[in-house]
Amino acid sequence: MTFPVVGMIGGGQLARMTHEAGIPLGIRFKLLSDTPQDSAAQVVNEVVIGDHRDLETLRAFARGCDVITFDHEHVPTEHLRALEADGIPVRPGPDALVHAQDKGVMRAKLTEIGVACPRHRLVAGPADVAAFAEEGDGFPVVLKTVRGGYDGKGVWVIKGADDPAVAEPFKAGVDVLAEEKVDFVRELAANVVRSPHGQAVAYPVVESRQVAGVCDTVIAPAPDLGHDLALQAERMALTIAKELGVVGHLAVELFQTRDGRILVNELAMRPHNSGHWSMDGAVTSQFANHVRAVLDLPLGDPRPRQPWTVMVNVLGGDYPDMYPAYLHCMARDPQLKIHMYGKDVKPGRKVGHVNTYGDDLDDVLERATHAAHYLRGTITE
Amino acid sequence: MTFPVVGMIGGGQLARMTHEAGIPLGIRFKLLSDTPQDSAAQVVNEVVIGDHRDLETLRAFARGCDVITFDHEHVPTEHLRALEADGIPVRPGPDALVHAQDKGVMRAKLTEIGVACPRHRLVAGPADVAAFAEEGDGFPVVLKTVRGGYDGKGVWVIKGADDPAVAEPFKAGVDVLAEEKVDFVRELAANVVRSPHGQAVAYPVVESRQVAGVCDTVIAPAPDLGHDLALQAERMALTIAKELGVVGHLAVELFQTRDGRILVNELAMRPHNSGHWSMDGAVTSQFANHVRAVLDLPLGDPRPRQPWTVMVNVLGGDYPDMYPAYLHCMARDPQLKIHMYGKDVKPGRKVGHVNTYGDDLDDVLERATHAAHYLRGTITE
Repeated sequence: MTFPVVGMIGGGQLARMTHEAGIPLGIRFKLLSDTPQDSAAQVVNEVVIGDHRDLETLRAFARGCDVITFDHEHVPTEHLRALEADGIPVRPGPDALVHAQDKGVMRAKLTEIGVACPRHRLVAGPADVAAFAEEGDGFPVVLKTVRGGYDGKGVWVIKGADDPAVAEPFKAGVDVLAEEKVDFVRELAANVVRSPHGQAVAYPVVESRQVAGVCDTVIAPAPDLGHDLALQAERMALTIAKELGVVGHLAVELFQTRDGRILVNELAMRPHNSGHWSMDGAVTSQFANHVRAVLDLPLGDPRPRQPWTVMVNVLGGDYPDMYPAYLHCMARDPQLKIHMYGKDVKPGRKVGHVNTYGDDLDDVLERATHAAHYLRGTITE
Repeated sequence: MTFPVVGMIGGGQLARMTHEAGIPLGIRFKLLSDTPQDSAAQVVNEVVIGDHRDLETLRAFARGCDVITFDHEHVPTEHLRALEADGIPVRPGPDALVHAQDKGVMRAKLTEIGVACPRHRLVAGPADVAAFAEEGDGFPVVLKTVRGGYDGKGVWVIKGADDPAVAEPFKAGVDVLAEEKVDFVRELAANVVRSPHGQAVAYPVVESRQVAGVCDTVIAPAPDLGHDLALQAERMALTIAKELGVVGHLAVELFQTRDGRILVNELAMRPHNSGHWSMDGAVTSQFANHVRAVLDLPLGDPRPRQPWTVMVNVLGGDYPDMYPAYLHCMARDPQLKIHMYGKDVKPGRKVGHVNTYGDDLDDVLERATHAAHYLRGTITE
């Protein structure tokens, strides 16, 4: 058998769901996980426990893998270059991945290739921040550490020159990026998948609703998005994938501004929360297409199977055990799709998501929202 | 966390696909498998290697499982009773499962509850077979060993009283059942799932096309099946599930006779080849519903997501390695759904299946058939 072995670095839910998508393809999965309790480590047969920041651990893990891919962006770029030098295909490769690891590198590159971004500049301290504000529309200004942030962490909104928070980002010892606070009407995401031989597919552009900086609800496709804007967003994502040499799934988080423009917020080079709807809503899920891309297999059809799909994240709430809630949720909605990650419940932690689909957006949205809130314990009927 | 542990006995592809369906529910899976190379053993985290015919192995395996279910019917009935006596829920239970293990018991029970079967009788030797033929329409007569047969094995068609094959079935040392050779126009299958609290769902009745006694193609729903016959077949399956106390998936293989009747051929109390189409074609797959049933969770919607779904089995052919064929199959049909089982290719062995779906049956049938034959190596373009 020449069925390949995919080496997945990181044991989170993205690895778990990628494994799930790889099973029907007969692909062997090997996982490098921090602990045996990690989300993916519970459901994969071949699990290596080790530190993804240690090059020798990575090298030992990579032996016997035909290709390496990722659950997260935290492997040091120089280690990825070392693996490549050893002859292991790393997908996405370090030259692409650095744009998802470092927001400063990302902003510079997108600007270079003509993709619209918020106004931005690397800043060295509070004085730079004040100067950046003055050259634009003043405060508020957004500050981000260029590495290490996620789900609203590593991001500060500075209200004025005398805002004491302005000193915070500079304490982390990493570069800090200042950005205009975009006046957006909503957030969108354009998800595309690209293979080494250059084939690419685009999922429909989705609307992503955040609560407290964390993705809460995704609607596919984004309601009332004009054809021109949708096409512009898809082209933007396909251009980024090509120009940055991305292999695998690329999520481009976007702002739709009040004055009708589309600006890039963040990039992720792996399956992404804004693509979870595709597991039940698209012909080929983002996870299946990520696997196909990293193996350089022809990509699957990304189109939706019905007019509307809604995903709502299940966040940890007050109840440590969500299983009893299955009874009510499943009985209420026999079409509901539950995806739990096997993670311990902690307040605010993403522990699962639900998908619903159908012809009537109001109905689909109500069903997904109800189920997620019932699982969280914020409603009891 | 009270998320339950499902103990699956048997490491075949049905266990593999049941595990795949259990992952999104956050269900922990524990597998008892003959070897670490078995289909499911490759993709499950907790694997115990052991003999399912040994009671102490079963008892040790069952500790730490909340419920036991099966990939096959080969666990001795008395061992299942012992596990039940130990307090382990066994689903389906031994009193139900015996009807899928022993065709003599099955025929007697179905006749008792008024479900139409081919004319049949337990026979002790060739003289009994001749008498059975004489009382009906003569030869041919079908002989089956009551235990141990599958995919056409353990079945003989006896052409006349002097057919030397008539002695064969009696050599195995198990009871032999004689049945009329039914004059059928096609084979159908009615798949239902039943939970301990008595909820049941029925999948649409499918047409199952056999080649050399092995399921080759399944069309969902069965084309040109009248509403009355479809309803009759569904009711038959629901009646059997209820009267036999089945928990989990029940497949009822049926003959549609030339004179317009429906007769039961075989029963299987586990996910079944005739239900594989549901993985991509139904709102809830047979595997997901089997998991929900054995955990006594409310069942999911069994309805199809589009007018037609076709499944074609991938049988081992001349080429030992099917992976290179992915390139052509995936490029030709981006909507194709491949399901491979991680099994070594042997001629005639079921090593995977493909699903296609859509609005046009001819197109859907052509795409699935092409892909399966290309993977088998019987066509090269």
